[in-house]
Amino acid sequence: MLDMLEKSTVWQDLQKIRAEAPLVHNITNYVVMNTTANALLVIGASPVMAHAPEEVEEMANLAKALVINIGTLSAAWIDSMMKAGRAARLKGIPIVLDPVGSGATRFRTETAQSLLRTAPPSIIRGNASEIRSLVLADQRTKGVDSVHSSEETIEEAQALSRIVGCVVSVSGRTDLVVDGIRTIRVMNGHPLMSRVTGMGCTATVLTAAFAAVNPSFLEAAANAMALMGIAGEMAAEHSLGPASFETCFLDALYSLQESDIRCRLRMEIA
Amino acid sequence: MLDMLEKSTVWQDLQKIRAEAPLVHNITNYVVMNTTANALLVIGASPVMAHAPEEVEEMANLAKALVINIGTLSAAWIDSMMKAGRAARLKGIPIVLDPVGSGATRFRTETAQSLLRTAPPSIIRGNASEIRSLVLADQRTKGVDSVHSSEETIEEAQALSRIVGCVVSVSGRTDLVVDGIRTIRVMNGHPLMSRVTGMGCTATVLTAAFAAVNPSFLEAAANAMALMGIAGEMAAEHSLGPASFETCFLDALYSLQESDIRCRLRMEIA
Amino acid sequence: MLDMLEKSTVWQDLQKIRAEAPLVHNITNYVVMNTTANALLVIGASPVMAHAPEEVEEMANLAKALVINIGTLSAAWIDSMMKAGRAARLKGIPIVLDPVGSGATRFRTETAQSLLRTAPPSIIRGNASEIRSLVLADQRTKGVDSVHSSEETIEEAQALSRIVGCVVSVSGRTDLVVDGIRTIRVMNGHPLMSRVTGMGCTATVLTAAFAAVNPSFLEAAANAMALMGIAGEMAAEHSLGPASFETCFLDALYSLQESDIRCRLRMEIA
Repeated sequence: MLDMLEKSTVWQDLQKIRAEAPLVHNITNYVVMNTTANALLVIGASPVMAHAPEEVEEMANLAKALVINIGTLSAAWIDSMMKAGRAARLKGIPIVLDPVGSGATRFRTETAQSLLRTAPPSIIRGNASEIRSLVLADQRTKGVDSVHSSEETIEEAQALSRIVGCVVSVSGRTDLVVDGIRTIRVMNGHPLMSRVTGMGCTATVLTAAFAAVNPSFLEAAANAMALMGIAGEMAAEHSLGPASFETCFLDALYSLQESDIRCRLRMEIA
Repeated sequence: MLDMLEKSTVWQDLQKIRAEAPLVHNITNYVVMNTTANALLVIGASPVMAHAPEEVEEMANLAKALVINIGTLSAAWIDSMMKAGRAARLKGIPIVLDPVGSGATRFRTETAQSLLRTAPPSIIRGNASEIRSLVLADQRTKGVDSVHSSEETIEEAQALSRIVGCVVSVSGRTDLVVDGIRTIRVMNGHPLMSRVTGMGCTATVLTAAFAAVNPSFLEAAANAMALMGIAGEMAAEHSLGPASFETCFLDALYSLQESDIRCRLRMEIA
Repeated sequence: MLDMLEKSTVWQDLQKIRAEAPLVHNITNYVVMNTTANALLVIGASPVMAHAPEEVEEMANLAKALVINIGTLSAAWIDSMMKAGRAARLKGIPIVLDPVGSGATRFRTETAQSLLRTAPPSIIRGNASEIRSLVLADQRTKGVDSVHSSEETIEEAQALSRIVGCVVSVSGRTDLVVDGIRTIRVMNGHPLMSRVTGMGCTATVLTAAFAAVNPSFLEAAANAMALMGIAGEMAAEHSLGPASFETCFLDALYSLQESDIRCRLRMEIA
């Protein structure tokens, strides 16, 4: 096991995002569109939300990364997700898939699995129950909240990573990021993060922004989780509850300095 | 008229919600999805938003309560509301209907009335104009804001309650909750609540969370309005305007203690 | 060039909005629905969001202004935009068009141009790249962010104004408002405004509220941009980052007094 602090690229990636303002194309759910657009803006990226089949290929072609999030799925959007995914593959930009609620209903599980085949993602980012639902038959979850821990899910994450040929990022008390060979653990974060809607979806869009500037998707995914967790710890110090936490969290992401990362980063590679 | 403080179940219900984290399935409008998901999370419930006809029955079957809110209605969603409503009835979980904007357009009034027949709710929660539009022909309202007071609407609320066989909760300066026999008045609240979008819809989802843990829907509906009003009063003491109020309101819902209820509750039963 | 402070109608219009609470009908994008509903509420207007073809004409008929915003466009919504636009024209209420992302994809550019013909707006409010895309062939933009300054776009804005016969409002470091004859410049604002999603869309809905009470659409559009900028400056003095800025901004809009306008207004007419 190796301490990654010495060679961490979190700060380097964040500086690139702030300098290059990569356009991140999102096909995502109604609940978090505002939240994740703001999260991308505060770290210096440029968000765009577009879901019409008439424009998703063109928009994906303008972008540096594509987010597909099935949080408030409907049949009409699946077609757009597939189209945008294929355009992103052709252009060679990273796709980050967030299988929100996979395992809760057959519709979501089957759609997520079908997206794995049609538009294989560069990174899958979900909670433990969602990740398990993509490899285990009859895996169930409770709505959109996980009933498993990330550590319980390491084998499933590694299996999924090998089957799809992508990085798998499992959020939880400890975040796990695997690529089939290596496993990175991120121990940053704060319990209040589970009391704000869309924090998982926010992790997903930050993952996409990092993947837009870092060709190692393993590093990109781990760096995004580290940034989330560090901003979460900073925010919790000034919060009175989940709503002021959300405000402080976005402000922390905006103003975060190299020293904040140096003091707080808790990342391990195995 | 009886002071309900002695036998109030607000705190008991809130503790149950925090302990059991009931899953609340929402088919609701785009404007408030984020707000109401956060309101459910801060009181300890588990929200899920799902509207696709392919999954609403399955999702309702996982849930402990169903919210149907017609705030940004379209034809495709009505079918899902009916389907989810029927599944909820079969499973025996409470349905809370929020007829947002009923009375403003024929489309909304007719849809709300049709939902009363197809998937009779356990509780209807709306403002005075919306409630009136469900019993009076040619009742009009201005957009989604009420032009009547709750006290002016007591007879219509009682009539609606008897016709549908459900609890009717009318929000206003004084909140009225009726079940055809009894009338509960909740006098908590603050004028800033009318300057934040989605406060009515938030009352609706809290009503659903309370109905998930309290089999008396009359009590559940009144307790939810009391919790709203108490958190509103607490928030107003630390707010500079509607936006900081919204933050303080959610934080207050999160951290609210038994003593806050004991000091502030203003509920009367007649 | 004339200093407009003496005869500014910003405060007079704001008082009218607070007194009359004009109903503003919005057909807008998913990202900003909550934000813009709150912005309308804090200045005293009454927002309603409705997009179903079954009800948009009826809703537009209840309203004092109509907002059409193509931010998360899909084919089904275009029909509703056209219908609502025609109803608004017939009733004689102002239409404010926000061509979000026009220039980024053919679908958005063509839809915006088609809306200019079918339901000619009273005011077009967009960023420089969006405005340019409506008059220049093959004008491209990056997602929904502008790659041009407003000053570079004055000729295009004037041309667009003359072709459509409407006021054109171009937001940027300096906001430009033109009607084909006169040009108003608003120099209020703060850089943090570009780090919060939906600030452009908020400018659009405030423009609609001002147009609901001021028959001079040139003045209405300029006054809305001035109010935005002044509230932005006030908010920036109490913010730690974009998220606390957004809260302070809405609170400032709510509590803004005549003296704030008198001290801060920087508007010039040429």
